Amino acid sequence: MATTNREVLLARRPEGEITDDCFAMRETPLAEPGEGEILVKNLYLSLDPAMRGWMRETKSYVEPIPVGGIMRGATISEVVESRVADFSPGDKLIGMNVWAEYSVVRPGGLRKLPDGLPLPLTAFLSVLGGTGLTAYFGLLDVGRPVAGETVVVSTAAGAVGSAVGQIAKLKGCRVVGITGSDDKCRYIEDELGFDKAVNYKTEKLVPALASACPNGIDVYFDNVGGDQLEAALTLINLKARVVLCGAISQYNSKEPPAGPRNILALLFKRARMEGFILFDYAPRFVEGVMELGKWVLEGKIKYREDIVDGLENAPRALRKLFDGTNRGKLMIRIAQS
Amino acid sequence: MATTNREVLLARRPEGEITDDCFAMRETPLAEPGEGEILVKNLYLSLDPAMRGWMRETKSYVEPIPVGGIMRGATISEVVESRVADFSPGDKLIGMNVWAEYSVVRPGGLRKLPDGLPLPLTAFLSVLGGTGLTAYFGLLDVGRPVAGETVVVSTAAGAVGSAVGQIAKLKGCRVVGITGSDDKCRYIEDELGFDKAVNYKTEKLVPALASACPNGIDVYFDNVGGDQLEAALTLINLKARVVLCGAISQYNSKEPPAGPRNILALLFKRARMEGFILFDYAPRFVEGVMELGKWVLEGKIKYREDIVDGLENAPRALRKLFDGTNRGKLMIRIAQS
Repeated sequence: MATTNREVLLARRPEGEITDDCFAMRETPLAEPGEGEILVKNLYLSLDPAMRGWMRETKSYVEPIPVGGIMRGATISEVVESRVADFSPGDKLIGMNVWAEYSVVRPGGLRKLPDGLPLPLTAFLSVLGGTGLTAYFGLLDVGRPVAGETVVVSTAAGAVGSAVGQIAKLKGCRVVGITGSDDKCRYIEDELGFDKAVNYKTEKLVPALASACPNGIDVYFDNVGGDQLEAALTLINLKARVVLCGAISQYNSKEPPAGPRNILALLFKRARMEGFILFDYAPRFVEGVMELGKWVLEGKIKYREDIVDGLENAPRALRKLFDGTNRGKLMIRIAQS
Repeated sequence: MATTNREVLLARRPEGEITDDCFAMRETPLAEPGEGEILVKNLYLSLDPAMRGWMRETKSYVEPIPVGGIMRGATISEVVESRVADFSPGDKLIGMNVWAEYSVVRPGGLRKLPDGLPLPLTAFLSVLGGTGLTAYFGLLDVGRPVAGETVVVSTAAGAVGSAVGQIAKLKGCRVVGITGSDDKCRYIEDELGFDKAVNYKTEKLVPALASACPNGIDVYFDNVGGDQLEAALTLINLKARVVLCGAISQYNSKEPPAGPRNILALLFKRARMEGFILFDYAPRFVEGVMELGKWVLEGKIKYREDIVDGLENAPRALRKLFDGTNRGKLMIRIAQS
């Protein structure tokens, strides 16, 4: 049984890109759970673009992580010691937690994995985790695609984008993905069944999108912001819906960049642009997990995972999200079960 | 009985601000109505910011006016000669028409004024016309204010803005108006009952709005775009609604200006920004006119009109909308009934 714990702290706020010295590793004696608490061993840690926002000083939709505080993140964990009824050693839990080998938590923050889904543990952090649920609720609840419509998604080969595209296909839509390499284009067209991929690094965005969307764009699911949002707005149809899910192109900016020049397209097209934060859907997570799980078990939704070993590698791994070198949902394997 | 007609044509498309040479007056023999047509004498012509958009080459939500074509606009007209059952000389009609002393129309484009509203003819082009209806449907259907919420409206002393603010007050909201002179500020606070006015020309917009909206902004009704939209976005609340109704600050721009820097506020606040065009509500115009008419007759909604005499003065009068010198709903009196 371990007697020490290792945690990753936010050592300083990044200016622009994340650097090594933004983080510090701390070793502490392993805490013991008090009454009503659970000691868990963290097995997997999810790494997500939103973490860049949590490292900022400005409040967004959650409190910023304080300098000197432990980094925040979703984990899959295993109960080691429980002082709460209904939780027993060996139980597998999921939820918002911290970058640490162990943590002492209260139930509520972490919850048990749902039964009846014979899938690897990591699936609950990837396709059935925050990224899959983001795709599920963001597309279906905010984007509201209708069969026959055209859905465009950015970061289409990423964990959220690839799920968005596949769900839109399941709903009978024409699906176009924007991504940043020919490899990724082939992946989403050939393996995930997107109708068309656009490489934003080698193609001219507006004409390429126009040719990929001969009937215009009904739903644009935006993970990127910036030029890609502006390009999509040039092609929106009447009553189109723009789901603002993220803006990874802007998270490293020191100054907020100018917005799209063509925001008036929303007016002319009576279109709706709406922001979306997964946390708001917490009461419906079980619904989303069960539905996504069914599709995954039926082979209708494919997913990839990019698993990096060792908590100490989390800071470096996080940067892969911003240079686009991760291949699938990025996570850290902190320990074996 | 007249034998000639005068019409105002779009002589060339404006670059930047509208100038006299964008228009030309043409005299033509008065046309006779064919079977199924009506000859009307146009009494009043509405002048609206949207006309600047119709003069552009680019298609927006309606076809651009062709160079050499007659300018488009809403009129109150009187039937002179009818070759349609149910329309008789003397009937007063309203609807989208052209800048001309007379026109030959088919029913459908123009419709009879509703009965039961003992108000001056001009009211049907102002508070019960396109501007009043824009306020009514844009605020209530897109903005969906709830009693106790804070509603902010730009061009607050204008025809749309002043109606938006008064309707929001009727619905129990705190109402803040942004306008461009101390006179206009006094007008909306003292005469229209707005809770607070902000002068965007003399006050620092963000702190002034913040102080006027201690509980943040729930609905922002935007007629301006640009800096005022950006300022409002800094203060929106969770689940706020931004109604994009117009963007008069940008209509004279040669190049579309950059959008708001803080569009991510929509994401963090799960807010909705939605475009709105009055034409979509045509099937519900009677509902809007009757409801607004009731409020006007009860003295609950006040309005001002800025009536300029003579069709030949329409080009010059139109510019008042862009330099902010009109006082109330701007229209041309083409002829007496």
